[in-house]
Amino acid sequence: MRPTPRVETFPANTPAASQIFTTVLSQGPLTRLEVARRTALSPAAVTKAVKPLIEAGYLVEDAADEVRPALGRPANPVRVDGGRALFLGVKVTGDEIIGVLTDLCCRTRGARRVPLADRAPKPVLAAIADLVGELLVQTAELGVGVHGLGVAVSGDVDRAEGVVRYSPFLNWHDVPLAELAAMTVGLPVTVDNDVRALTVAEQWFGAGVGLSDFAVVTVGAGIGCGLVVHGRVVAGAHGVAGEIGHVTVDPAGPPCHCGNRGCVEAIAGEAAIVRQVREATGIEVRDATEAVTLAHRGVPGVREVYARAGEAIGRGIATVANLLGPERVIISGEGLAAYDLFAEQIRDTLTAAAFGSAAQCDVQTRPLPFEEWARGAAATAIQSFITPDDPHPSR
Amino acid sequence: MRPTPRVETFPANTPAASQIFTTVLSQGPLTRLEVARRTALSPAAVTKAVKPLIEAGYLVEDAADEVRPALGRPANPVRVDGGRALFLGVKVTGDEIIGVLTDLCCRTRGARRVPLADRAPKPVLAAIADLVGELLVQTAELGVGVHGLGVAVSGDVDRAEGVVRYSPFLNWHDVPLAELAAMTVGLPVTVDNDVRALTVAEQWFGAGVGLSDFAVVTVGAGIGCGLVVHGRVVAGAHGVAGEIGHVTVDPAGPPCHCGNRGCVEAIAGEAAIVRQVREATGIEVRDATEAVTLAHRGVPGVREVYARAGEAIGRGIATVANLLGPERVIISGEGLAAYDLFAEQIRDTLTAAAFGSAAQCDVQTRPLPFEEWARGAAATAIQSFITPDDPHPSR
Repeated sequence: MRPTPRVETFPANTPAASQIFTTVLSQGPLTRLEVARRTALSPAAVTKAVKPLIEAGYLVEDAADEVRPALGRPANPVRVDGGRALFLGVKVTGDEIIGVLTDLCCRTRGARRVPLADRAPKPVLAAIADLVGELLVQTAELGVGVHGLGVAVSGDVDRAEGVVRYSPFLNWHDVPLAELAAMTVGLPVTVDNDVRALTVAEQWFGAGVGLSDFAVVTVGAGIGCGLVVHGRVVAGAHGVAGEIGHVTVDPAGPPCHCGNRGCVEAIAGEAAIVRQVREATGIEVRDATEAVTLAHRGVPGVREVYARAGEAIGRGIATVANLLGPERVIISGEGLAAYDLFAEQIRDTLTAAAFGSAAQCDVQTRPLPFEEWARGAAATAIQSFITPDDPHPSR
Repeated sequence: MRPTPRVETFPANTPAASQIFTTVLSQGPLTRLEVARRTALSPAAVTKAVKPLIEAGYLVEDAADEVRPALGRPANPVRVDGGRALFLGVKVTGDEIIGVLTDLCCRTRGARRVPLADRAPKPVLAAIADLVGELLVQTAELGVGVHGLGVAVSGDVDRAEGVVRYSPFLNWHDVPLAELAAMTVGLPVTVDNDVRALTVAEQWFGAGVGLSDFAVVTVGAGIGCGLVVHGRVVAGAHGVAGEIGHVTVDPAGPPCHCGNRGCVEAIAGEAAIVRQVREATGIEVRDATEAVTLAHRGVPGVREVYARAGEAIGRGIATVANLLGPERVIISGEGLAAYDLFAEQIRDTLTAAAFGSAAQCDVQTRPLPFEEWARGAAATAIQSFITPDDPHPSR
């Protein structure tokens, strides 16, 4: 494990205490009795763990929320005081860096973007430092400490070691980003794959709260997938997991940058859509925005490209459903701008290709701008603060 | 929850005690200190949990295994006394019922097969009763109690409720098999999907011991998959999981019984292989054994059928690797009789279609006869005995 600067130590220093705090954080306000029920811990253990957390100001007892049972003494619900601590989250894309300032409940308190002229580690670190500096100006006004920075990067990221093993978009190999960023900004830094970071935000603060098995599918430049199984984000024994974009849909299909043919991403990724729209129309569309515009104008052949993309995504989701049987699939990403163009095909293909009751999984769409990905990065920093010894905490 | 007859209550009645016993069962003999390390529990908690288990005869302290540290008192390893309790396991196929008698360590003490003339629930239950009766004769000689029966059936099985929701091979719908079998044989009964039962045996007693993420892929009449993620067998929120046989390999491929085209099973299942060998050779082969014989004789066109089957299986395994990144994939099933005919294609396709480091997963083959599936059923009965309140226990 790499050394990280420590700003303040969180007072929940046992797995049970972390679990109790996490439960209140994502599902509260809750009475101690309800926390005990949901964590399968004893009420005495909950009371014991809650005490130092209240003393340190991380939990508050809310008299306004008081529940008065017919018998016995009133059971005061406890909730997290979001304003007790601040966190930073950064998402690195190929063109810009998006940063947010959040509170302990992962509510966004500020956001900034800075363009990225050069994708090499040094200029990226400099841009992160600039952006963090801008966001920290705000925190001075709030008078609350910043307890960590999360950085989300696409590709193969080893969160435990803090290393970006390989990021195709940035063309990075084995960059010890957590250590470099920690030295630059003077905060503890958590580095994670961007789709996994988004999944953490959904699991703790979004549409995955209370679910033990769900998937987040992101549609955009790439097609990604974050998986939560048995209450924990799947990281893969060798760093690779959730690669729904490289599920083969058609072995005779178009070539993919991964070296295979007919991957979901080779049919439904933004570059693939732009290419197919050019081929179908002869119009030199530059990007996905233009392709969507052509589709909405009814230019012949464009809707068919999106229909095929929807089928490919639906088949990828069906594969996830057939293998893992998730309770819910959350579809998100910047590609959702085109969602009306392929929503029907995604649902129809999923229904047709899902095996038996796997088709029962609930499909939701959540339009998430890049700031939400940065918020995902902040969520990983919150996780690291609460459960410093567990690189992949559960709910 | 359905009521089940109770033969004897296991003295580990907390989750921690179950976890301690399970660790010794699958990884022992171990010293108490080593158990504490592996379970992340305190040495005091381990000592406390071990005591009643030794008193009841489930654990024994082995002086022969004594480890003498240079300093301090000797640390006696504890191990499970396999002979302390017996279990029965039954695998139901379309043609016969295979049963085994095992000890608490899931070592086979006896095996029997009875043919099945009729697949309706009543005659199947009668056949199970006959087979159990034959196996119980043996137990009388051993003078040890039988503590449970496990029944493994292919299809959608709800283990918690003890119901076979849908089994295509048997043409069963919503059969409360656990309750019916418990009334018939007078033992607590655990019912599970056959591939999941085999996965439990691998997890607790086989090639999956000590791994938190692995897959068992079974090749034969059907192509199945049992998945262990974060130390627990994946059951799926709606009962379906591990359906690798219905991953689409080629949307233009042959029709599958599930209603889609080009599923792994529609290309590599035994019926599909027999059909393709007939088409390629014009020879009226009756079953997979004849098809393998033709391939080994070098009849033109037959090896190509197996090569395509191997590619389909390899692509299915690559999909599992890309989504979950398991440490190990264990390939098994009666179809392994043909393994030399498609092993190369499985490995080559997996290597080509796995994304990045996902290809690093260790692939093992384990030829498992039907008796091993029955042993898997016995393993689920052992699980239920040790952790009666958890329908899907972890290691």
